[in-house]
Amino acid sequence: MELVHVVIGLALVEYLYFLMRCGAARGRLDVAAPTTVGNPEFERYFRVQYNTIEQLVIFIPGMLLFGAYVSPAVAAGLGVVFIVGRFLYGRGYVIDPSKRGPGFLLTLLANGVLLLGGIGGALFAWL
Amino acid sequence: MELVHVVIGLALVEYLYFLMRCGAARGRLDVAAPTTVGNPEFERYFRVQYNTIEQLVIFIPGMLLFGAYVSPAVAAGLGVVFIVGRFLYGRGYVIDPSKRGPGFLLTLLANGVLLLGGIGGALFAWL
Amino acid sequence: MELVHVVIGLALVEYLYFLMRCGAARGRLDVAAPTTVGNPEFERYFRVQYNTIEQLVIFIPGMLLFGAYVSPAVAAGLGVVFIVGRFLYGRGYVIDPSKRGPGFLLTLLANGVLLLGGIGGALFAWL
Repeated sequence: MELVHVVIGLALVEYLYFLMRCGAARGRLDVAAPTTVGNPEFERYFRVQYNTIEQLVIFIPGMLLFGAYVSPAVAAGLGVVFIVGRFLYGRGYVIDPSKRGPGFLLTLLANGVLLLGGIGGALFAWL
Repeated sequence: MELVHVVIGLALVEYLYFLMRCGAARGRLDVAAPTTVGNPEFERYFRVQYNTIEQLVIFIPGMLLFGAYVSPAVAAGLGVVFIVGRFLYGRGYVIDPSKRGPGFLLTLLANGVLLLGGIGGALFAWL
Repeated sequence: MELVHVVIGLALVEYLYFLMRCGAARGRLDVAAPTTVGNPEFERYFRVQYNTIEQLVIFIPGMLLFGAYVSPAVAAGLGVVFIVGRFLYGRGYVIDPSKRGPGFLLTLLANGVLLLGGIGGALFAWL
């Protein structure tokens, strides 16, 4: 499972980058806390970070279940798909929110396979 | 712990359903990204998803700690209470936000027992 | 790892306190669901809770990786730094959002060491 843990860690480094980019945008665009809405450019950085949280909630348990019950190597590969998908999502979104589709679908696909495969594997091990 | 993992996975499938329902509402109600506020109907679907994230942050570690240190069978049972509570919450909220109370309390109750029981069990194992 | 699990549990009790404080503020300040923006005082409580979610996404996996691959005792110590940092953050923010800096930096520092150290340890174990 070491490789699965490394890939989870790298996805969190990518998330940390989105988090710090959003914090930097808050300073640069002069959006004073606690405000989060009203400045469309800031909102893009903010939504990239929060959409990534939305997906990590599935990704981390999905990686651990799929890695433990199905295959750690396949889990790591799907984790790389997730990281690449998030990169495309984060880059597309800040250019134009309508460009967020392909990256979003890639992460959703990786997450769907990880979660459903992980549940299937755990169910099979339990029965 | 296989059963605990299955129940965590099922709670995440329910969350994935809230996520996709919120995405569908964004399209149907014509709420263009990155906007998240201003359309009360969209906001209900959005808040159901985000309130579920708020609770999953406690639920997943709580299930793992309670399952490992107290009882995997009781953890799985509390996990089912959580899933049912979330279902009632998600259904009540979109009809009328004032109807979200019972489902919310059910999830908070399950989470409180899982978290405090899990900490107690870990503390007992450590001492 | 029992101590690491106890410290993760205590950080989640602190988060549960922020969650319930935010819920209480919603009632007291008469902010009807699904609204989350518009009342600056409510927004402070809301942002303390959500910023804590943003950080817990890194903290929990970081604690587990660092605890498993580097040192459970050092992980537990960094976890205490995180909990103290969050306490300062949550207290400073509601008084004046400009006072949230020191607590934020303390949590970010703990999270950075936990995440990067954890990845390094997992990578070293894998190679």
